[in-house]
Amino acid sequence: MQTAQFPGPILQLVNELRRLPGIGPRSAERIAVWLVQSPDARPKELAAALTECADLIRPCIECGYFAEGERCAICLDPNRDPGLLCVVEQPTDIIPVERTGSFRGRYHCLGGRLSPLDHIGPEELRIDSLFERVRRAQFQEIIFALSADVEGEATTNYLVEHLRASGAKLTRIAQGMPAGIGIENADELTITRALTGRTSV
Amino acid sequence: MQTAQFPGPILQLVNELRRLPGIGPRSAERIAVWLVQSPDARPKELAAALTECADLIRPCIECGYFAEGERCAICLDPNRDPGLLCVVEQPTDIIPVERTGSFRGRYHCLGGRLSPLDHIGPEELRIDSLFERVRRAQFQEIIFALSADVEGEATTNYLVEHLRASGAKLTRIAQGMPAGIGIENADELTITRALTGRTSV
Repeated sequence: MQTAQFPGPILQLVNELRRLPGIGPRSAERIAVWLVQSPDARPKELAAALTECADLIRPCIECGYFAEGERCAICLDPNRDPGLLCVVEQPTDIIPVERTGSFRGRYHCLGGRLSPLDHIGPEELRIDSLFERVRRAQFQEIIFALSADVEGEATTNYLVEHLRASGAKLTRIAQGMPAGIGIENADELTITRALTGRTSV
Repeated sequence: MQTAQFPGPILQLVNELRRLPGIGPRSAERIAVWLVQSPDARPKELAAALTECADLIRPCIECGYFAEGERCAICLDPNRDPGLLCVVEQPTDIIPVERTGSFRGRYHCLGGRLSPLDHIGPEELRIDSLFERVRRAQFQEIIFALSADVEGEATTNYLVEHLRASGAKLTRIAQGMPAGIGIENADELTITRALTGRTSV
């Protein structure tokens, strides 16, 4: 007698699901079984969506954001301010900025930030293509919207140094108190930066 | 200017992922982006596994467990004791029983338990096919391994009543102290049942 396991196709599905971020072995099994037996499950639709993404989505050759063709919807949008560039770390950083509705320029995704300890130097990021783009496009302003931590700062500083001569105004997003937070809940560095960056009222 | 969103195929993937149990909107977005851009992601393999499951896995016509053909691996295994049947609620309940290695008979999955409040009566479960199977197969023993709660008990009692005349010995799995738990951590009902079910030493 063999001890029964799930049939092969279910085990295969569990294995693929386990590879997803944030999905442990338990959840993978739970999701696989749900997909196999729940009347609400749509495994074929999920499979089709996965295949579609794998086939169609590429990084935009201009900015690195997700694109269905060569260029993404933002780079193709003629109503974007061509003089305004916002540099972010990841393509996913674009979504929260877009959701604010308060930026109407274009983006450049670095694909990460400089991190010597992880062997991520300028060559590992989309930095050459940023420099080339800046030479080509004559931006009025380049806004750096990288993480407010050591590596993010270092990356911003590196880029600022190399883009100083571009003629564009170089800015970084403000650091200070996050919305809705009282002084007693903020850390010292945040308060220090909020004090340093104080504005007239 | 249009506020940019994820491209259509990614949104579609997020929507399908959100339908999975235990996956919220945030995780769905995170997983979708990972699937699109991580070098470790295998979206096509996941899609193939999903399609394979959807195409191949069916409930075993005999016991209701997951099968690749008409009958599952357990029902097809000639080395299983044909006189021993274990009745469980869900196909997934079979896996933990199998993992113990201490049961060598066959199973019957009801697909749930009687629950009048949720409009689940005998017709909604694989109860008719259980009765028919018992009439056909002449089991020596039928073990009921349903949940140790009110609905599980009621379902067991209902089945026992209808199978009393079958000639099979009818048993239920023991209720008592779970392994590794001290008396001080057990609830009253568990202790009551453990006392009632006490065995000679």
